[in-house]
Amino acid sequence: MEYTLGEIAEITGAELDGDPDSKIRRVSPLQTAEADEISFLANKRHVQYLKDTKACAVILSAENKARCHVQTLVCDDPYLAFARTLRHMHPASTFTPGIHNSAVVSEESTISTSAHVGANVVIGAGSKIADHASIGPGCVIGKNVVVGENTTLVANVTLYDGTRIGSKGLLHPGVVIGADGFGIVKDRGEWLKIPQIGTVLIANDVEIGANSTVDRGALADTVIENGVKLDNQVQIGHGVKIGEHTAIAGCVGVAGSTVIGKRCMIGGHSAISGHIELVDDVIITGMSGVSNSIKKAGIYSSGIPVTENAKWRKNIARFRNLDEITRKLLQLEQRIDESSSD
Amino acid sequence: MEYTLGEIAEITGAELDGDPDSKIRRVSPLQTAEADEISFLANKRHVQYLKDTKACAVILSAENKARCHVQTLVCDDPYLAFARTLRHMHPASTFTPGIHNSAVVSEESTISTSAHVGANVVIGAGSKIADHASIGPGCVIGKNVVVGENTTLVANVTLYDGTRIGSKGLLHPGVVIGADGFGIVKDRGEWLKIPQIGTVLIANDVEIGANSTVDRGALADTVIENGVKLDNQVQIGHGVKIGEHTAIAGCVGVAGSTVIGKRCMIGGHSAISGHIELVDDVIITGMSGVSNSIKKAGIYSSGIPVTENAKWRKNIARFRNLDEITRKLLQLEQRIDESSSD
Amino acid sequence: MEYTLGEIAEITGAELDGDPDSKIRRVSPLQTAEADEISFLANKRHVQYLKDTKACAVILSAENKARCHVQTLVCDDPYLAFARTLRHMHPASTFTPGIHNSAVVSEESTISTSAHVGANVVIGAGSKIADHASIGPGCVIGKNVVVGENTTLVANVTLYDGTRIGSKGLLHPGVVIGADGFGIVKDRGEWLKIPQIGTVLIANDVEIGANSTVDRGALADTVIENGVKLDNQVQIGHGVKIGEHTAIAGCVGVAGSTVIGKRCMIGGHSAISGHIELVDDVIITGMSGVSNSIKKAGIYSSGIPVTENAKWRKNIARFRNLDEITRKLLQLEQRIDESSSD
Repeated sequence: MEYTLGEIAEITGAELDGDPDSKIRRVSPLQTAEADEISFLANKRHVQYLKDTKACAVILSAENKARCHVQTLVCDDPYLAFARTLRHMHPASTFTPGIHNSAVVSEESTISTSAHVGANVVIGAGSKIADHASIGPGCVIGKNVVVGENTTLVANVTLYDGTRIGSKGLLHPGVVIGADGFGIVKDRGEWLKIPQIGTVLIANDVEIGANSTVDRGALADTVIENGVKLDNQVQIGHGVKIGEHTAIAGCVGVAGSTVIGKRCMIGGHSAISGHIELVDDVIITGMSGVSNSIKKAGIYSSGIPVTENAKWRKNIARFRNLDEITRKLLQLEQRIDESSSD
Repeated sequence: MEYTLGEIAEITGAELDGDPDSKIRRVSPLQTAEADEISFLANKRHVQYLKDTKACAVILSAENKARCHVQTLVCDDPYLAFARTLRHMHPASTFTPGIHNSAVVSEESTISTSAHVGANVVIGAGSKIADHASIGPGCVIGKNVVVGENTTLVANVTLYDGTRIGSKGLLHPGVVIGADGFGIVKDRGEWLKIPQIGTVLIANDVEIGANSTVDRGALADTVIENGVKLDNQVQIGHGVKIGEHTAIAGCVGVAGSTVIGKRCMIGGHSAISGHIELVDDVIITGMSGVSNSIKKAGIYSSGIPVTENAKWRKNIARFRNLDEITRKLLQLEQRIDESSSD
Repeated sequence: MEYTLGEIAEITGAELDGDPDSKIRRVSPLQTAEADEISFLANKRHVQYLKDTKACAVILSAENKARCHVQTLVCDDPYLAFARTLRHMHPASTFTPGIHNSAVVSEESTISTSAHVGANVVIGAGSKIADHASIGPGCVIGKNVVVGENTTLVANVTLYDGTRIGSKGLLHPGVVIGADGFGIVKDRGEWLKIPQIGTVLIANDVEIGANSTVDRGALADTVIENGVKLDNQVQIGHGVKIGEHTAIAGCVGVAGSTVIGKRCMIGGHSAISGHIELVDDVIITGMSGVSNSIKKAGIYSSGIPVTENAKWRKNIARFRNLDEITRKLLQLEQRIDESSSD
């Protein structure tokens, strides 16, 4: 496939300084781009690569235009323009409607004739697969599940009975939606399981990464609102509510009954305690622990970055006594205050 | 289905102040309960909802009875009574005995006639599926595996050769039992794999959450005792032993050869090092790191909760120099001691 | 099966002090070994078990020979000799070549006649399964995938279109290779997905633990070099490059575009930020956070081990004010300096 710079300018809304008929075949990084490729500058650290790039053209912001010796597409948000270019060149893959003959589909389910049901899929009674949805190989869909229009389950996804996925969703392999929440109570020294009778409601345009899990509610439902993006290996506990357009990076765990607001961003490997609330527009940097509600938008952090092991050992030893160290300081201050007031 | 308050009083052992013939249909939170629903008060924070509840009756402790204007069921442990009520209303789902015709079951395996084997299940030679066990769609069971009575593998669970699961177990989708432990040794600059010849022994009444993994032992077996509950995305290393009635929350990792005692509780996202021992009745709060043995029952913690990013940056910079800061303090103390002894 | 001490001496290169015709059946720990078993001493903590062992012989280093009352095999690296002994006794399991009749294999794929394709496997067009490879039950392999010689996918593994796995690889159940990286960009308040058009290139002799995930590259490929070992539940982001013979323990996350050098070791539950670089021979201890590049080989750490909860609460409260505490100390120092210079 070939594209022209004029076409890219139109799609991205960028201002082209160059020949609109120049032909490109793909997008490449500044360092490796060749004469039939377009590149982009969206990260300050990559300015250094601008002077030697062999790209046909570069998408960049106005401030960097002067430094670029090849054709340019100038716009306010080069990363967004890059994304739009890629989306234009790589539209979502299509699939053939129909049900594979190895699929085990309940006669009491409703499968749209425009939907795709792949090899070895299992679909239970009462479930509905909407128009243009695609259920990839090995997926297991329980009873009374709804999968919305244009939603794709890539492969080996499991949806429990009664869960609902909206339209334009994308669930990667290994995702499990609607497993029992971790609801147990001590009964004479042993754990008694509490039936988890809520379900999971996932709205539209939600992407869930490989091997992520979203538990069903205990009483109230677990809710994932429109446009939420979950990376791989994310764990969402029972009864959690995640507000629209919130993004959660890989390996994050959110414990039960917590409410996360809209447009939040949670950095990778963070842990969010249960029964708390984060308001809209909260940003948590990676590897943080959130154990109390956050009532004000802003950036919050708690991870500790590495140091050399020898130094760390000493610092840790001090940390273990930080309260005593601080008390000693306060006593010292008092002694000095007293002695100077003598 | 309809239930009476008298019936609930009997099941829970709670003392009913109200009409035993009052009919209820389900359990709901205080805030949303309607006239045909029962509610419960098990969390101090929810006392505020008591005065406006429309529930038919509320399960609560004696101390809160006076604040409740609707019918009451008084007991010592309202959360346990709530669990019993739910279990009464929502008995475990039943399944149809028999082997689905798409399942690939070795002729040399033994499947109870009361067991259920779902679509696309694979079962190897020498394996035994006991009475009333249910193997859901897509599960892969190796050779010489034992699945005990009344145990359920929901879907897409993988059991390696030789692993044994006791009775009344519940394994959620994506669970992998018996994969090789991380046993490698350096051999002239490259890693040589050490065969993992132990197996995994899981006792009775064990629940394992979605996408959790329990590795087989290197030499000795990995052992999960009766009544242990593992949440989602928990990783149990090779040769680990977990004592009965211990509960481990989501995203926890336990490294190889570690022994965890009975009735322990490990908070979410914690990490437990290998080759250590935690005695019985240890509680680890969420996001903690345990790198040494714990020899005394009690509560242990190490996670650091978030602060505003700007403040965190300053604190982190100090933490990196905590040893030097402390030395400075000690020197200062010495100077003052010396000057005051002058 | 029976083996002789002479045979073990030859395989391991250890020096036998004993009868080369002594027969053994298996390897066991010092504490439990019986008269027809061989044991080994590779961990200082286990020296205590030497005096009472009933093993036929013990593999150990020269320094411990005098303490051993049974036959010995002396060598420099007893753990490596133990591994070689186990590998000799437990060769990798074999499988029957051929394609199971329940597998759904594209006619446009190429499956070696010496390869094994198990029950319910799905293989797409253009894919190639090389000689002696084994694709276990429930695996889903997309289009144009390459699985190299002697590589084993145990069960329920998912390989996306275009991914490539080298020879002698071992992928455990639940592994997902080639899912979309977490590439999103804000577009008028909503997330726009960025197509992930790179792939995943996994070289030879790579082992990937259960439920681990390796994302495809955004533009450039994600690369795992020869001999890399990943434990369970490891997450590798898009465009990451991991150098040969690096080992990464369980529950580690590596964010996008990061480059990890050769022969690194990353401890369990650690988090590595995106867009950074770790040079060769870096060791990161468990539960650490790495947010900046590491330019010098060595050991780095940042995890904080648990203390009693009551003490932790106090220390945490101080940590929140560590910058202020340090300022107070510096002021105090200044006051003392000034007063002593009076």
